Parts: sequence; C-alpha cells; structure tokens
Amino acid sequence: MDNVSIIAMVSIFTAGITMAIGSIGPALGEARALSQALNAIAQQPDEATTITRTLFVGIAMVESTGIYCFVVSMILIFANPFWNYVTRAGG
Amino acid sequence: MDNVSIIAMVSIFTAGITMAIGSIGPALGEARALSQALNAIAQQPDEATTITRTLFVGIAMVESTGIYCFVVSMILIFANPFWNYVTRAGG
Amino acid sequence: MDNVSIIAMVSIFTAGITMAIGSIGPALGEARALSQALNAIAQQPDEATTITRTLFVGIAMVESTGIYCFVVSMILIFANPFWNYVTRAGG
Amino acid sequence: MDNVSIIAMVSIFTAGITMAIGSIGPALGEARALSQALNAIAQQPDEATTITRTLFVGIAMVESTGIYCFVVSMILIFANPFWNYVTRAGG
Amino acid sequence: MDNVSIIAMVSIFTAGITMAIGSIGPALGEARALSQALNAIAQQPDEATTITRTLFVGIAMVESTGIYCFVVSMILIFANPFWNYVTRAGG
Amino acid sequence: MDNVSIIAMVSIFTAGITMAIGSIGPALGEARALSQALNAIAQQPDEATTITRTLFVGIAMVESTGIYCFVVSMILIFANPFWNYVTRAGG
Amino acid sequence: MDNVSIIAMVSIFTAGITMAIGSIGPALGEARALSQALNAIAQQPDEATTITRTLFVGIAMVESTGIYCFVVSMILIFANPFWNYVTRAGG
Amino acid sequence: MDNVSIIAMVSIFTAGITMAIGSIGPALGEARALSQALNAIAQQPDEATTITRTLFVGIAMVESTGIYCFVVSMILIFANPFWNYVTRAGG
Amino acid sequence: MDNVSIIAMVSIFTAGITMAIGSIGPALGEARALSQALNAIAQQPDEATTITRTLFVGIAMVESTGIYCFVVSMILIFANPFWNYVTRAGG
Amino acid sequence: MDNVSIIAMVSIFTAGITMAIGSIGPALGEARALSQALNAIAQQPDEATTITRTLFVGIAMVESTGIYCFVVSMILIFANPFWNYVTRAGG
Amino acid sequence: MDNVSIIAMVSIFTAGITMAIGSIGPALGEARALSQALNAIAQQPDEATTITRTLFVGIAMVESTGIYCFVVSMILIFANPFWNYVTRAGG
Amino acid sequence: MDNVSIIAMVSIFTAGITMAIGSIGPALGEARALSQALNAIAQQPDEATTITRTLFVGIAMVESTGIYCFVVSMILIFANPFWNYVTRAGG
Amino acid sequence: MDNVSIIAMVSIFTAGITMAIGSIGPALGEARALSQALNAIAQQPDEATTITRTLFVGIAMVESTGIYCFVVSMILIFANPFWNYVTRAGG
Amino acid sequence: MDNVSIIAMVSIFTAGITMAIGSIGPALGEARALSQALNAIAQQPDEATTITRTLFVGIAMVESTGIYCFVVSMILIFANPFWNYVTRAGG
Repeated sequence: MDNVSIIAMVSIFTAGITMAIGSIGPALGEARALSQALNAIAQQPDEATTITRTLFVGIAMVESTGIYCFVVSMILIFANPFWNYVTRAGG
Repeated sequence: MDNVSIIAMVSIFTAGITMAIGSIGPALGEARALSQALNAIAQQPDEATTITRTLFVGIAMVESTGIYCFVVSMILIFANPFWNYVTRAGG
Repeated sequence: MDNVSIIAMVSIFTAGITMAIGSIGPALGEARALSQALNAIAQQPDEATTITRTLFVGIAMVESTGIYCFVVSMILIFANPFWNYVTRAGG
Repeated sequence: MDNVSIIAMVSIFTAGITMAIGSIGPALGEARALSQALNAIAQQPDEATTITRTLFVGIAMVESTGIYCFVVSMILIFANPFWNYVTRAGG
Repeated sequence: MDNVSIIAMVSIFTAGITMAIGSIGPALGEARALSQALNAIAQQPDEATTITRTLFVGIAMVESTGIYCFVVSMILIFANPFWNYVTRAGG
Repeated sequence: MDNVSIIAMVSIFTAGITMAIGSIGPALGEARALSQALNAIAQQPDEATTITRTLFVGIAMVESTGIYCFVVSMILIFANPFWNYVTRAGG
Repeated sequence: MDNVSIIAMVSIFTAGITMAIGSIGPALGEARALSQALNAIAQQPDEATTITRTLFVGIAMVESTGIYCFVVSMILIFANPFWNYVTRAGG
Repeated sequence: MDNVSIIAMVSIFTAGITMAIGSIGPALGEARALSQALNAIAQQPDEATTITRTLFVGIAMVESTGIYCFVVSMILIFANPFWNYVTRAGG
Repeated sequence: MDNVSIIAMVSIFTAGITMAIGSIGPALGEARALSQALNAIAQQPDEATTITRTLFVGIAMVESTGIYCFVVSMILIFANPFWNYVTRAGG
Repeated sequence: MDNVSIIAMVSIFTAGITMAIGSIGPALGEARALSQALNAIAQQPDEATTITRTLFVGIAMVESTGIYCFVVSMILIFANPFWNYVTRAGG
Repeated sequence: MDNVSIIAMVSIFTAGITMAIGSIGPALGEARALSQALNAIAQQPDEATTITRTLFVGIAMVESTGIYCFVVSMILIFANPFWNYVTRAGG
Repeated sequence: MDNVSIIAMVSIFTAGITMAIGSIGPALGEARALSQALNAIAQQPDEATTITRTLFVGIAMVESTGIYCFVVSMILIFANPFWNYVTRAGG
Repeated sequence: MDNVSIIAMVSIFTAGITMAIGSIGPALGEARALSQALNAIAQQPDEATTITRTLFVGIAMVESTGIYCFVVSMILIFANPFWNYVTRAGG
Repeated sequence: MDNVSIIAMVSIFTAGITMAIGSIGPALGEARALSQALNAIAQQPDEATTITRTLFVGIAMVESTGIYCFVVSMILIFANPFWNYVTRAGG
C-alpha cells in the first residue's frame, strides 16, 4: 500500500462522497422552490411570467452550490495536484 | 492486497454509494414538486398547461444533480484514471 | 483473502446496499405523488384524466433514479470490469 | 477463513439487509397512498372506482422498488456469480 | 473459528435483524392506513363496506414487504444454500 | 472461544435485539390506530360497533409483524438449527 | 475469558438492552392512546364508558409487545438454554 | 481481566443504561397524557373527576414499562445469577 | 489495568451517563405538562386550583423515572456491590 | 497508563459529558414553559400573578433534573470515592 | 504517552465539548422564549413591561444550565484536581 | 508521538469543534428571534421601537453562549495551561 | 506511508467533505428564501421589485457561508501551507 | 509519522470541518430570517424600510457566529501557534 494507492483511494472516495452529499441540498432545495412556484402560479396565473423568471434565476443560485461540489469532485479525479505530485515523483 | 485490489475495492464501493445517496435528494424532490403540481392542477385546471411545462423544466433541473452522481459513478467504474494508471503500471 | 475475494466481497455488499438505499427515495416519493393525486381526483373528478396522465409521467421520472441504482447494482454483479480484470489476470 | 466463507458471509448479510432496508420505503409509501385513498373515498364515494384503480396501479409502481430489492436479495442467495466462481474454482 | 461457525453466526444475526428491521415499515404503515380507515368510517358510515374492503386488500399489499423479509429470514435459518455447502463439504 | 460459545453468543444477542426492535413498530402502530378509534367513537358514537370491530381485526394484522419477530426470537433460543448442529457435532 | 463469561456477558447485556429498547414503543404508544382517550372523554362525556373500555382493551394489546420483551429478558437471565449447556458442560 | 471483572463490568453498565433508556419513554409518555388531561379539564371542568381517574389509571400502566426496566436493573445489581455463579465458582 | 480500575472506570462512566440520559425525558416531559398547565390556566382561570393540583401530582409521577435514574447512579457510586466485592477481595 | 490516570481520565470525561447532556433537557424544557407563560400572560394579563407563580414553581422542578446532573458531576470531580481509593492505595 | 499527557488530553477535549454541547440547549431555549416574547408584545403592547420582566428572569434561569457547563469547563482547564495531583506527583 | 504533539493535536481539534458546534445553537436561535421580530413589526408597526430594543437585548443574551464557546476555543489555542506546562517541561 | 501522503490524504478528504457539508446549509436556506419570495410575489404582485431586490441581496449573504467553505476547500487543494512545507522539506 | 505531520493533519482536518459545520447554522438561520422578512414585506409594504434595516442588522449578528468559525479556521491554517512551535523546534 504505497503512496500512489493511498492518494488514489482517498481521491476516489472523496470525489464520490462529495458529489453524493452535495446533491442532497440542491435537489431538495430546488424542488421546494419549484413546488412553491407551481403553487404561486395556481394562485396568481397572471404573475406566471414574473414567478417563473424569479424561479429560474433563484434555482440557478441554488444549483451553484451543487456545481461547486461537482467542480471539487472533478478536480479530485482529473486535476488532482497531490496525485500529479506523487505520480511525477515516482510514487 | 496489492494496489490493484485497493483501487478496485474503493472504486466499486464509491460508485455504488454515490449513486445510492445521490438518488435520495432528486427522488424526494421531484416527487414533492410533482405532488404540488397535481394539487395546483386540481385547483386551477385552466392553468394545467403552464403548470405542467414549468413542472417538467423544473424537474429536469432537479434531475441534473442526480445525473451528476450517475456521471461520477460511471466515471469511477468505466473511465477511472487512477485504475488506468495502476493497471498500466503493472499493479 | 486474495484479490478475487476482496473484489467479490465489496461488489456483493455494494450491489445490495446501493439497491436498498436507492429504493427508499423513489418509493416514498412516488407514494407521496400518488397520494396527492388521489386527493386531487377526489377534489376535481373532472380532471382525473389530466391528473392521472401527469402522475404517471412524473412517476416515471422519479422512478428513473431508482432505475439508475438498479443499473449500477446489476453492473456490479454481472458486468463488473474490476472483477473481469482480476479473474482474467488469475487473481 | 478462506474465500468460500468470506463470499458466503458477505452474501448472506447483504441479502438480508438489502431486503430489510428495501422494505421500509415501499411499506410506508404504499400505506400512505392507501391511507389517502380511504380518505378520498370517504370524501367522494362516487369516485371510488377511479380512486381504487389509480391506487392499485400506483401501488404496483411503488412495490416495484421493493421487488428490485427482493430480486437482488434472491440473486445473492441463489444465483450469485461470485459464489459460483469461487466454489467452481475450489475455494 | 472455522467456516461452519462463521456462516452460522452471520446467518443467525442476519435472520434476526432482517425480520426486526423489516417489521417496522409494515407495522407503522398498516397502522396508518387502519387509522385513516377508522376516521373515514366515522365520517362516512354508509361507505363502511367499501372502505373496509379497500383497507384489507391494501393492507395485504403492505404486508407483502413484511412477508418478503420473513421469507428471507426463514430461508437463512432453514434452507441456507451456503450452510448446506459448508456442512456438506465438511466445514 | 470455540464454536459453541460463538453460536450461543450470537443467538442470544440476536434473539434479544430482534424482539426489542420488532416491538417498536407494532406498539406505536397499534397505539396510533387505537388513538384514532377513540377519536372516531367520540365523533360517531353510533358507529362504535363497526369501529371497534375494524380496529381489533386491523390490530391483529399489525400485531402479526410483532409475532413474526417473537417467532424468530423463540426459534433462535429454543429451536436453533445451527446450535443443534454444533452441539451434536461436539463443538 | 472462557465460554462461561462470554455467555454470561452477552446474556446480561442483551437482557438489559432488550427491556430498555422494548419499553420505548409501548410507553409512548399507550400514552398516546391515553392522551387521545382523555380528549375524547372531554368531547363526549356521555361515551366515557365505551371509550374507557376500548382504551383499556387496546392498551392491553399494546402492552403485549412490551411483555414479549420482558419475557425474552427474563428467559435470558433465568432460563437461558445456552447458559445451562455451558455450565452443565463444565465451561 | 478475569471472569469476575468482566461480569461485573457488563452488569454495571447494563444496569445503568437500561434504567436510563427505559426512563425516556415513560417520562415523555406520562407527560403527554398529563398535558392532555390538563387541557381536557380546562375544556370540560365538569368532567374533571372522570378525567383525573382515567389519567392516573392510565399513567400507572405507562409507568409499568419503566418499572420493568427498574426491576431488570435491580436484578442485575443485587440478584444477578451470573455473578452469583462466577463468585461462587471462585472467579 | 487490574480489576479495581476496570470496575471503577465502568461505575463512574455509567453513573454519569445514566443520570445524564435519564434527565432528558423528565425535564422535557415536566416542561411540556407545565407549559400546557399555564395554557389551561389562561383559558380557564376559574379552574386554576384543580389544574395546579393535577399538575403537581402528575409531575411527581413523571419525576419518579428521573429519581430511579438518580437512585441507580448513587448506588453505583456509593453502594456498588461489585466494587465492594473486588476491594474486599484485594483487587 | 496506571490506575490513577485511568480513573482520572474517566472521571474528567464523565463529569463534563454528564453536565453537557444534562443541560439540554432542562434548558429546552424551561424555555418551553417560559415561552408558553409569556403567551398566557399576553392572552390573560389579569392572571399574570397566578401564571408567574406556577411558572417559577414548575421551572424549579424542571431545574431539579439539571441539578442532579450538576451534583453527579461535582461528586465525580471533588468527592470521587473511586479516586480516593486509588490515590490512598498508592495507585 | 505518560499520565500527564493523558490527563491533559482528556481535560482539554472534555472542556471544549462540554461547553459546545452545553451551549445548544440554552441558545435555542432562550431564543424560543425571546421569540415568543416579541410575539406577545406585538399582541399586547400594554403588557410589554410584565412580559419583558418575566422574560429576563426566565432567561436567567435558562442561562443557568449554560453557566453550569461553563463552570465545569473552566474547572477542568484551570482548577482541575486530577491535573494538580499528577503534576504534583511528578507525572 | 510525544507529549507535545498529543497536547497540540487535541487542542487544535477541540478548539475547532467547540467553535463549530457552538455556532449552531446561537445562529439558529438568533435567527428565530429575528424572524419573529420581523413578523411582529409587520403586525404592530407602532411597537417597532420596543420590539427592536427587546430583540437586541435578547440576542445579546443568546450570543453569550456562542461567546463562551469562542472564549474556550481561544483559551485552548493561545492560553492553554496544559500546553504551557508541557512546553516549559521540555515535552 | 510517509508525511507527504498523510498530508495529501487528509487535504483531499477535508477539501471534499468541507464543500459537501458546506453546500447543504446554503442550498436549503436559499431555496427556502426563494420559495417564500415566490409566495410573497403571488400575494403582493405590486411589491415584486422590492421583494426580488431584498431576496437577491439576502441570498448573497446566505451564499457567503457557502463561499467560505469553497474558499477553504480551494486553499486546501491549491495553496496548502502544510503541503508546501512538507514538499519543500523533502517529505 | 512524526510530529510535523500529526499537527498538520489535525490542523487541516479541523480547519475544514470547523468551517463546514459552522456554515450550517448561519446559512439556515439567515435564510429563515430573510424568508420571514419577505413575508413581512408582502404583508406590510409600508414598513419595508424598517423591516429591511432590522433584517440586515440582525443577519449581521447571525453571520457573526459564522465569522467566528471562519476566523478559527484561518488561524489554524495560517497562524497556528502549535505548528509554529513544532516547525521552529525542528519537528
């Protein structure tokens, strides 16, 4: 169990778990906002345009935290500085 | 327990658990939005078209976090750079 | 405890737990939407057709996250690339 | 503790726990839908036929996730490819 | 601690815990439906027959997930293929 | 710590914990149904007979999951096939 | 740490924890039903007799799951077949 | 760490934890019933006698599960058959 | 780490944790009843005497489970039969 | 790691954790009662005296469980019989 | 890892965790009471004086459990009798 | 891993975790009170001065528990008596 | 497992988990505020401008805590002073 | 695994986890207050100025606990006295 496999092991596990945990918040949050938007449209059909626009701008902000997790996850898999160091150093 | 089996073990476990945890948020979230949409249709049948359209666009955004997890899971099984490194290196 | 048994052990456990955890979200979610649909039908019997159609399209989307888990679970049991590698390599 | 007993041990445990966890979601979900259906019938006795039909179609879809778990559990006990490999290989 | 005792130990523990966890969902679910049925009867005594019939058909479906757990539990105690293998093989 | 004590240890622990966990669901479930029945009687005293009859038939079904746990628990203590095997085999 | 102390240790711990966990469900459940009964009496004083009778019959059924746990706990302390075996066998 | 200290250690810990966990259910349950009784008296002062009597009979039944835990706890400290065996046997 | 320190260690830890966990239930329970009593007095000032009396009798019963925990805790610190045995036996 | 440090270590940890856990119940409980009292005063300013008096008597009873924890914690730090034994015995 | 560092390690950790856990209850509790007080003032501005006075007396009592934790934490850091013993004894 | 690094390690971890856990209670609590204050202002704009004043005095008291945690955290990092002892003693 | 791989391992894991946990709060929080904003727009379409402005300023503040986590995560991956020290020191 | 890597490892992990946990409370809390503020503006548009001002002053106080966590996190990474000691001491 040399350095290479330790770094690889931790990188794989962290990449997966970061994405997994990081999807819970945005998914539930966006769904809540979406759910409320549908309710608001049903109550005020005339405001559907304003509501929909606010909804999608807001969801984009909520999605951003999920994107951060995806970015961290991708960095750990494909652009991991620690991995580059140990593989360049010969492991 | 050489490098190959460590990487494989962690990859398999992470791929599964990422998909498993990553399905909870979207599934509950989409169902919540769907549930509210059905309620909204029952209250405002005339707005069914607007509601349904907003619903499916929104669900697609919620589904995106689940898709991220599925993508990470597939990368870990079929395009794992760490696995490629150790199997190419001879394990 | 050679490589073969480690990979097999982790694959079996992950396949089971992925399916088990992955069934919670869809099951509760679909039931929530179904529950609301029954309520909506009771309130607006005239919209039963629209509600039922929206319900089953929506449930199909919720079910998709459960299907992802089932797919990952089956891949780990019957088309596991790591298992193929170690059994082909002689274990 | 050779390979045979490791594979058997993990298979037994996973088969049980998959079924156990996988029964929680469907059981609670179906009961929730059933509960709401009874409520809907009490409110709209005239729609009892539509409600009951939608209920049982929906419950069948919810049950499907429980069935997936049961299938995985049975595969692990009676058609386990990893078990077949190690017992055929002599353990 | 040879193979026989490992398999027996895991089988006993899994059989118990599967039944234990698997009883929570159905018990709470059936009780919820039953509870709602009593409420519905109190609101619509004239529909008592329809409600009761739907209740017991539905409870039978909820009970099915508990039965699956009981089946898995009994298979592990009395018809365990792994146990048969190791005891026939001489342990 | 030979085979006999391992099997005994696991059997004792599993028997207890199965019964303990298995009593939570039925106890809370039956109490919920009972609670609702009392409420229903207070609202519709004239339907007390129907309510009480439905209550006790339903509670019997809920109790069944608790009984399954008790059966598994008693089998593990008094009719444990694994225990019979190891004590007959000489431990 | 011979067989006698292992069996004793596990029996003591299991007896206690079984009773402890097994008291939560019945205690909360009975209290819920009792609480609702008091509410029902306050709403319908004329039905106090019916309510009280149904209450105590129902509580007896809820108590039964607590009794099962107490029985298992007492069996493990005072009539433990595994303990009898190891002490008769000389430990 | 001979047999005497193992048995003593487990007995002490189990006695404490049994009482601790066993006090949660009854305490919360009795308080819930008491709380509802006070509410019922405020709504129906004329029924205070009936309510109070039902309350204290019911609380006695809820308390019974706490008493079971106290009994098990006292048995483990002062009348522990396993302790008697090992101290009589010389440890 | 001889017998004396093992027994002492477990006794200290159990005494503390028993009291700590055992204080949660009664504290929350009594506060709930007290809270409801204040509400009842505000609704029915004329019944303040009956409410207050029922309150304090009831709180005394809830407190009893806390007292049991305190008693067990004190027994473990100051009248521990296992401690007396090992210190009298010379450790 | 002789006896003195084991006893000291466990005493310190238990004293802290007992007080920490033991402060949750009373703090939340007293605040709940206080919160309800403020509400009751706002609804019935004329009963402010009765409400305040009942409140502080009740809070004193709730506080008692916190005091028990503080007492146990202080005994473990400053009047610990086990500590006295091992330091008098020479460790 | 001699006695001095063990005692120091446990003291540091316990001091921190006691204060951390002990701040949750009072913070949430005081905020709840404060929140209700603001509501009460909005409903009955004329009673603002009585409400505010009762609020701050009550908060002082809730704060007391937090103070106990702070006291225990400070004793463990600055007036720890066990630390004094081992440092005076030479470690 | 000598004394210095043990003390440092525990101090660092405890300082962080104390602050982290200790920020949850006050943050949620203050936000709850703030939230209610905004609601109260909307209902009674004329009382905005009284409400705001009570709010900030109350928040200061809630904040105090967070401050205690920050103080403990800072003491552990910059004025740690145990650290001073071991570094003065030469580690 | 030299210093380099320890630091790398911990840095990778911490970077991922910090981002993952740190995305839950902001995602749920922003979605809650967004959800309420949509509701407010539906109730007061005339205030849509004020509401939207307050919403996005507020969300920016909520997002700030998520940004802090992202910053810490990036520092640990790309500007880690501990990593720089050990790699400069030769590992 | 010398002192340097231990201190570094613990500092990295604590810095991350402190920030991660410390972001949950403020994020949820600020969002709750913001959410209520939007509601209040919709109910009382005339008070928008007062509400917004109170909101941002209050959010600044809630944010303060998050800032404390960020400060502790930065101190541990960039101004860690324990790290300075061990690196100055030669590790």
